[in-house]
Amino acid sequence: MKLDYPEVVDEVLKLMWPRKMKLFTAGPVACFPEVLEVMRSQMFSHRSPEYSALHKDTVLRLAEFLNAKKATVLLAPCSGTGFMEASIRNAVKLGGKVLVTSIGAFGDRYAEVVESNGRKAAVLRKPLGEPVLPEELDEALRKNSDVEAVTITHNETSTGVINPLRELAKVAKERGKLVFVDAVSSMGAIDIRVDEWCLDIVFSSSQKAFGVPPGLAMAAVSEEVFEKAKDVSDRGWYFDLIALREDLVKGWSTPSTPPIPQVAGLNAVLRIVERMGGKNSWLKMYEKRAEKIRIKVIELGLELFAKPGFYSPTITVVRTPMGLRSSDIYRSLRERGFEIAMGYGPIKEATFRIGHMGYITDQDIDDLFKELSDVLRNLKSR
Amino acid sequence: MKLDYPEVVDEVLKLMWPRKMKLFTAGPVACFPEVLEVMRSQMFSHRSPEYSALHKDTVLRLAEFLNAKKATVLLAPCSGTGFMEASIRNAVKLGGKVLVTSIGAFGDRYAEVVESNGRKAAVLRKPLGEPVLPEELDEALRKNSDVEAVTITHNETSTGVINPLRELAKVAKERGKLVFVDAVSSMGAIDIRVDEWCLDIVFSSSQKAFGVPPGLAMAAVSEEVFEKAKDVSDRGWYFDLIALREDLVKGWSTPSTPPIPQVAGLNAVLRIVERMGGKNSWLKMYEKRAEKIRIKVIELGLELFAKPGFYSPTITVVRTPMGLRSSDIYRSLRERGFEIAMGYGPIKEATFRIGHMGYITDQDIDDLFKELSDVLRNLKSR
Repeated sequence: MKLDYPEVVDEVLKLMWPRKMKLFTAGPVACFPEVLEVMRSQMFSHRSPEYSALHKDTVLRLAEFLNAKKATVLLAPCSGTGFMEASIRNAVKLGGKVLVTSIGAFGDRYAEVVESNGRKAAVLRKPLGEPVLPEELDEALRKNSDVEAVTITHNETSTGVINPLRELAKVAKERGKLVFVDAVSSMGAIDIRVDEWCLDIVFSSSQKAFGVPPGLAMAAVSEEVFEKAKDVSDRGWYFDLIALREDLVKGWSTPSTPPIPQVAGLNAVLRIVERMGGKNSWLKMYEKRAEKIRIKVIELGLELFAKPGFYSPTITVVRTPMGLRSSDIYRSLRERGFEIAMGYGPIKEATFRIGHMGYITDQDIDDLFKELSDVLRNLKSR
Repeated sequence: MKLDYPEVVDEVLKLMWPRKMKLFTAGPVACFPEVLEVMRSQMFSHRSPEYSALHKDTVLRLAEFLNAKKATVLLAPCSGTGFMEASIRNAVKLGGKVLVTSIGAFGDRYAEVVESNGRKAAVLRKPLGEPVLPEELDEALRKNSDVEAVTITHNETSTGVINPLRELAKVAKERGKLVFVDAVSSMGAIDIRVDEWCLDIVFSSSQKAFGVPPGLAMAAVSEEVFEKAKDVSDRGWYFDLIALREDLVKGWSTPSTPPIPQVAGLNAVLRIVERMGGKNSWLKMYEKRAEKIRIKVIELGLELFAKPGFYSPTITVVRTPMGLRSSDIYRSLRERGFEIAMGYGPIKEATFRIGHMGYITDQDIDDLFKELSDVLRNLKSR
């Protein structure tokens, strides 16, 4: 298409990208070039056969990826936190109680979502850097036998810790609780078997391990949740899971307009997964990448923040060396064209974070560590 | 960037666009080519200085467009209905009462949002095709003096009627009520003066008159709403307006990740508005386009559905000629490469709709009517 105002494109891109930057962020992350190409497709109606075809194909591919044949896969116009709110408003009665397991900032966010929506949160909180262990969850459930559901942060983006999801879910299900999983920074990077592990709501968003721009959230929802939702009166309109499923079944669409470009982007990534040899090869790529980064961190004489055995597959949190500040490391790397993430919350200066989601090559990683090594040397010698 | 899997791009685009189609939809609508160009920018962190700069520039431009200097302009990752829910959850007490004025499907949706969020809706409903008149609103407010707020659909997308917003808002404010405006299919196409008309919440979404892909919602919110929200306990997390403003003030961002590509798209459109001579010239374009379409409808011997004097600037609803079905007209035009919108709700077959939002040229309109004339002749002669 002919551009009437080509200078407008230049201006906006310059505002967004004053200079080139390699991303090792916590999300949004660098997107696959194929994804960016489909993002610029012309739009069409979300009630058209074309949109239905796109939505259906994307949902079926994602359901396959998540091993969610019995569960219903939903796409919605929101960030991952939207489905966090949906889980509480649909599957916990007003005034009902939820056991929130928190291993960092995003577990704490779940507790806020519970409380701000008129439910009660009992919080099982672990020291930063540690996961929740199955026996701890079991103990907490014994003490809080009246909770309707348990929330688990699969991967805590603020501390770089991955929880033993499968084992935790088993404990919660044995005690008859619904299991809600914040998989925002894990889905797409590590295996999640929704049906087999009996997960009730598992949600994520486009801008993390799938490497798609932000604006789209995805969830797998169990039949048990839809049954329960019928008895919850204040589900609201926007995040009503029953209505979301109705529109899916009726015409492969959503009650309110979906972010079509991001749906197309997710579709493209799921096709790339297929091309790369399927889910296992794709997950292997994530595993190798995380390992490479951890080795390089250790080679630099730095310490990992997470407890050994629970290292995140998507983000590596590093202790800031004594006497240095995370913000200085962040700023110096930015000056050299690398965007990492600063520490988060109470460990903002005590740690820095290297995200490894999305479109990152081995060369990018080598380049980052070359610069990081240099930056640390410079900062120490000041 | 080099594409490793160029065939993936082809596959997705073919799934989305099996053939070329000119859009006269109710939204999502055809986007400006400049917008689509910026949509494919690589991503970056929404906590970076780059994102803050983009967000700030977009908000300031939109505030200028909406004459919202006192009101706070917010961007959020949702569709327009998200802000509909936000208006109720933030500015009406749980169990409180709202006067919903309804002139069609989207007024009815507002009533559903009120009720499903635990508030009570008193509905002033007009026959389809008619607007709400100021004296009718005044009468309804006399009868329902206990309501906390009034909702107004500025432009009813299902009937092609525009409400006299300024006059209606005046009546509501005189009676001391908050005014919530669903401007989903009007914002960007007709003047809205937020401060001057004392509107409390006015919201829209990206995929309508601004011609940007869906996924982003925009709102202007008055100080009165933020004051009131402090006393509303169940605001929830996702649509908490106080939290949205906090993140805006703190760092020109949002509590949960914003749809960066659509923000860039909106930024590009607002720059195009400037290039076209500013807001008034841009709105003139919409006025002329709507007029041209109405004249062509009448030239074809067809009847407009809306009451004269209240014709929508963004969508023209046409009565289906006697003996024909709207679905046949829709399907025949699709076969010829034109996507209009079918009727909506109870007037689904009795009307068809020609949207005139987004990237549409005069030639496109001429082409559409040439085909429509032909389609009607063929269908009548069957």
